[in-house]
Amino acid sequence: MREQIVDAAFEQFHRHGYNACGVKLITDSAGVPKGSFYNHFESKEALALVVMDRYGETRHLDELRTPDTPPLTRLRNHFDALARDIVEFGYERGCVYGNFSTEAADHIPAIRDGVRAAFDLWAAAITATLREAQEDGTLTNAQSPETLARFLLNAWEGAIVGERAAKDGSSFAAFFTIAFEVVLH
Amino acid sequence: MREQIVDAAFEQFHRHGYNACGVKLITDSAGVPKGSFYNHFESKEALALVVMDRYGETRHLDELRTPDTPPLTRLRNHFDALARDIVEFGYERGCVYGNFSTEAADHIPAIRDGVRAAFDLWAAAITATLREAQEDGTLTNAQSPETLARFLLNAWEGAIVGERAAKDGSSFAAFFTIAFEVVLH
Repeated sequence: MREQIVDAAFEQFHRHGYNACGVKLITDSAGVPKGSFYNHFESKEALALVVMDRYGETRHLDELRTPDTPPLTRLRNHFDALARDIVEFGYERGCVYGNFSTEAADHIPAIRDGVRAAFDLWAAAITATLREAQEDGTLTNAQSPETLARFLLNAWEGAIVGERAAKDGSSFAAFFTIAFEVVLH
Repeated sequence: MREQIVDAAFEQFHRHGYNACGVKLITDSAGVPKGSFYNHFESKEALALVVMDRYGETRHLDELRTPDTPPLTRLRNHFDALARDIVEFGYERGCVYGNFSTEAADHIPAIRDGVRAAFDLWAAAITATLREAQEDGTLTNAQSPETLARFLLNAWEGAIVGERAAKDGSSFAAFFTIAFEVVLH
């Protein structure tokens, strides 16, 4: 039953965001009685942290670590995979991290800590890839890889914000053009 | 009384986002009876559109149009002013457009249209500034000013998403470094 609740929460948090997704929506969607929720989770907040962990496993960080692929190609594959996931949902739902950061980080310390840790882990994986590209000479931009990684991660999150409104691919297109043709020169 | 409601809604929507800010929170904060709300507004959604218009007046677009200032300086002043507003709130609250896009654009067509129009207006003002900089030779980057503007606007929105979680200035610093030292070369 715990697994059913986590599966349903993954779907409903992603679809509705943090505030619009209540415990009842989750238990209804899981097909379990609302009362059973608190046998498995202390709070909606605690479940949201489990969902964030599970979401992390789907963030295509493995694309950044594929052996025998040039680092900037791996980075491109990483963002291509992230984009495909969002296009598949018709530019809806966005990124769970970005959604939780926007909706809940100001008000719920544990959510804020979880999002910050997730962004830091992701930024570190991008940083390592960029450092490799600087070392093998495919990235001539000499800015610190940490700064470049944080910028790219945020630019991606912002492209998602843009697509939530436009849903026409223009923000993703601008991201890929400027990130890969200008920033990563 | 309408003005009191709009003032309160501006504050409460910005602080809590769209979903966590109900009509009662707004009328309580305005110090007016909940019943009076519907004498002035058809719905929370209708009031949110009024708040978005008013928010637009505070987005420092005038910085982009200051006469006798070089275009890239105007762009820098524009983003500096936006950053100051957010630092003043301790990196809380974020951007009303970004918040509404993330929380409500998927589910409420009028909010989605409002955010899209606001982003388009903002992107057009940045585009005009960048075109001027390309024409006077201070911007040698030859990418289309529309694409650059959309990328920068989104990168800024994403920097805000990053700061909601980290609240340490690192995402804003990365934005200013990479946007102004790399993208706008």
